[in-house]
Amino acid sequence: MSGKYDLGLEKNDANYTQLSPLTFIERAASVFPRRTSLIHGDTRYTWKETFERSRRLASALVKLGIEKGDTVAVMAPNIPAHYEAHFGVPATGGVLNSLNIRQDPGSIAFILEHGEAKALIADREYSEVIHKALNMLDRDLLVIDIDDPLGKRGEPVGGTTYEEFLNTGDADFTWRGPDDEWDAISLNYTSGTTGNPKGVVYHHRGAYLNALGNIIAWGMTGCPVYLWTLPMFHCNGWCFTWSMAALAGTSVCLRHFDAKKIFSSISEHRVTHLCGAPVVMNMIINSKVEERSAFGHRVNFMAAAAAPPAAVLERIEKMGFGVTHAYGLTETYGPAALCEWHSEWDELPPVERSMMKARQGVRYTVEEGLTIGDQETCKPVPSDAETIGEALFRGNIVMKGYLKNPAATEEAFSGGWFHTGDLGVMHPDGYIEIKDRSKDIIISGGENISTLEVESVLYRHPGVLEAAVVARPDAEWGETPCAFVTLKTGAEETKEKEIIEFCRARLAHFKCPKTVVFTELPKTSTGKIQKYVLREMVRKL
Amino acid sequence: MSGKYDLGLEKNDANYTQLSPLTFIERAASVFPRRTSLIHGDTRYTWKETFERSRRLASALVKLGIEKGDTVAVMAPNIPAHYEAHFGVPATGGVLNSLNIRQDPGSIAFILEHGEAKALIADREYSEVIHKALNMLDRDLLVIDIDDPLGKRGEPVGGTTYEEFLNTGDADFTWRGPDDEWDAISLNYTSGTTGNPKGVVYHHRGAYLNALGNIIAWGMTGCPVYLWTLPMFHCNGWCFTWSMAALAGTSVCLRHFDAKKIFSSISEHRVTHLCGAPVVMNMIINSKVEERSAFGHRVNFMAAAAAPPAAVLERIEKMGFGVTHAYGLTETYGPAALCEWHSEWDELPPVERSMMKARQGVRYTVEEGLTIGDQETCKPVPSDAETIGEALFRGNIVMKGYLKNPAATEEAFSGGWFHTGDLGVMHPDGYIEIKDRSKDIIISGGENISTLEVESVLYRHPGVLEAAVVARPDAEWGETPCAFVTLKTGAEETKEKEIIEFCRARLAHFKCPKTVVFTELPKTSTGKIQKYVLREMVRKL
Repeated sequence: MSGKYDLGLEKNDANYTQLSPLTFIERAASVFPRRTSLIHGDTRYTWKETFERSRRLASALVKLGIEKGDTVAVMAPNIPAHYEAHFGVPATGGVLNSLNIRQDPGSIAFILEHGEAKALIADREYSEVIHKALNMLDRDLLVIDIDDPLGKRGEPVGGTTYEEFLNTGDADFTWRGPDDEWDAISLNYTSGTTGNPKGVVYHHRGAYLNALGNIIAWGMTGCPVYLWTLPMFHCNGWCFTWSMAALAGTSVCLRHFDAKKIFSSISEHRVTHLCGAPVVMNMIINSKVEERSAFGHRVNFMAAAAAPPAAVLERIEKMGFGVTHAYGLTETYGPAALCEWHSEWDELPPVERSMMKARQGVRYTVEEGLTIGDQETCKPVPSDAETIGEALFRGNIVMKGYLKNPAATEEAFSGGWFHTGDLGVMHPDGYIEIKDRSKDIIISGGENISTLEVESVLYRHPGVLEAAVVARPDAEWGETPCAFVTLKTGAEETKEKEIIEFCRARLAHFKCPKTVVFTELPKTSTGKIQKYVLREMVRKL
Repeated sequence: MSGKYDLGLEKNDANYTQLSPLTFIERAASVFPRRTSLIHGDTRYTWKETFERSRRLASALVKLGIEKGDTVAVMAPNIPAHYEAHFGVPATGGVLNSLNIRQDPGSIAFILEHGEAKALIADREYSEVIHKALNMLDRDLLVIDIDDPLGKRGEPVGGTTYEEFLNTGDADFTWRGPDDEWDAISLNYTSGTTGNPKGVVYHHRGAYLNALGNIIAWGMTGCPVYLWTLPMFHCNGWCFTWSMAALAGTSVCLRHFDAKKIFSSISEHRVTHLCGAPVVMNMIINSKVEERSAFGHRVNFMAAAAAPPAAVLERIEKMGFGVTHAYGLTETYGPAALCEWHSEWDELPPVERSMMKARQGVRYTVEEGLTIGDQETCKPVPSDAETIGEALFRGNIVMKGYLKNPAATEEAFSGGWFHTGDLGVMHPDGYIEIKDRSKDIIISGGENISTLEVESVLYRHPGVLEAAVVARPDAEWGETPCAFVTLKTGAEETKEKEIIEFCRARLAHFKCPKTVVFTELPKTSTGKIQKYVLREMVRKL
């Protein structure tokens, strides 16, 4: 069309800017220069300082030769340097590759190789792992050591420290956005329970939109104080790194944490928001009384990565946390759906309330589509809360694709939707509920059994700390549910039979575990239970 | 670049959607189908119904032959039909042209002609004006009559009513976004104090972004209840039409209003938000006690169009309103800047607090640039709170341009910035303050006098209801300030000399009015004082 609404109405410098979260920090530094951006131990930075340090970082990287499309890797916990990299690296035109700090040298080497990192900024706590990883690489890589007095410090790997490196940069570096909002901003490798990890590429447009999407989804206003219990290497902290700049809020950094640290941070800094996987929730709930500090305000907790069992939700809310249940994957910039709450649900009995909240819900305002569809055709399943299909996303907060992996990218996007690999149902009210990972579902006597459903019952047992259910091959039924259970320390002795009876009182009998194993649960570096390890254990039973 | 971060990582249906506020109503209807979308007298619509009615409207318009790039005009007050048009018209690919209901037949005819409207949806209250306007047009135009029982109803102009028209549409009409987010969504004519009005073209991308920008700027959360004191024909209700869909909030419609209606609506519907020009503030402040209904909650008022004088701000806040001062123009989708508040300013003495708040402030998070620059070169003036320059915007919430007016478009965008025509200063903290319209500033003995500054002093006089200051030609000084003042009814008799003395006690003497005229102030249809009329009156003094 070149009708009257287009002629002479082209894009120009005045009326069009490429979307990028880089504009947020510029605004934060200009409007709230003296407001605290980051708290790290006794260190405080203001937004003016964080912006200056990010500009120095960008400038120093450019002087080093980093240019558009170059990868810069960071191996660091939730500390100011890692936060600064979320702005300083993309401001060069480069792409930030935050590494999972719990990964082994082999995986690190694979990622540095596959992502073609030109430089690595690494905290000295991980010097040993980095050193081993670099020995596996068949090329040299420039390493900048983060020398954090609050961390354990191994042998330096590179020849320069992060602070020295910043000093080589110019605080007046010209801050500029991307040439195109579709340009890559970051690279996040999936944890990949099997096979090599895949490199998920984010673009500036998506990062900008989900940073705003988080604010709207969670109703964040004013100057929030955000506690970094969620790793920044996890989907760029679910894009909250950028959301905090958009709001000029205050981030409370944490190298490591336990229940005591969470409570003392909340109490000392008046934390308003934190995010985390169920493991963080469990840490809070199962904290000892002497680990808890008092706080008088309501704290907002965004839970994702796995549906929090009803019993867990119920208990954490009683402790002063308001829980928002979100859902997403690395491929969707972190949270891209949430259980949007209806005020009338407040009136439901506790168990029903928790059941409503345990649903993954509806698309973010900035995501354009979410459905449960047929895995092949993408055709939506009936909204009957029963028919199992795959959770499918589409819209602006879906990744650009997998780096150097066109086959996986094409497969993930087949039929015009992003395939999550998660199986679920569509409720009559349009809310989705995830029942299982595609490969986790149990088929017993032809019936689908959601392991999540069985687990949520196990979590209601007073003696159970953690639980996971997987399929056990069975001559008669094909498969039967096998439960792996960790008991609370000090819990009364609990027998297999008692657990099974507890389930039978609350579930259809075919869904109840036929076997119960009491053990510690194996977890990935991001705290997800490794069901494939459990499946291997089952084979040996 | 076609490096590793682009190869095989193209846009596709799964990972890219054109930005459009049309996705908001789809989500509101799906997630909150039973929540009240619109309140109009005793009528209540739910989001499900509003979406259905918008789809019917779109379908009916398509059946009529409306297609991409066609203009559909609406002449209506703040009623459900007007709200529905904000979704139903763009969903056809057409462009919504909301007409100022206070305009004369000649202007309406000009706009219908210039905008090439294919259809007009008009409330019967304006039948007479529409009839006259149509007689001036040299072509036929399809008219649909809105037959609102709450309004005065003139003779029908068209052959069909709005409700009949909706019935010709299909509630299952396929809802779809624009082909390109740069496509036009609406056409808003500037009120134009002189010459023919200019047609400002908005696109889907800008409407989407400013709808979210409003939410973030104002900290809107949950289910806001928005009172429509601001006309929907004014920058599409400053994009709040679309913001309310993004939040699935509740809109309280108003055909006409006075102080009594504002208070009773706030009290009855627990209104949380309303917007308006200073005229609305004055209406609230100067209301009689018997016109006020009690309300126990804080109401958020977004004020723009002209800086509220300090005295006015102070008084309305005491009445239970929290005031956010925003700034923008038709060309910037309504508000594109706001006086972002710092909590430490709460501690300032009242007059200083008001002075801080009277500043227009900083760019919206979704706008990318705002400065005070040289009118020719766009070079920023010093941040000294004194040097006068022009307010300049750039970014994604700047219009596409003026319809069929490439010369005006080019002039408005010269130097890569949108030229507002407003003159102001940059404070050391990066906040802008508008001193005057370019043509309003008074130059007396070589000194610039901000008429806004003089007016803000006049408003502090206890007897003054409204005030406006313009230049009076003067043989000695070039120009001197001339004040036009409306006294409050029942105020003590006030003389010219007393007003001048009042100003001299509070302002540099060269800034004080040399002449005071007591009179009613002439206003535009949007409530702005018409200074050009006052200037004509001055010439006759």
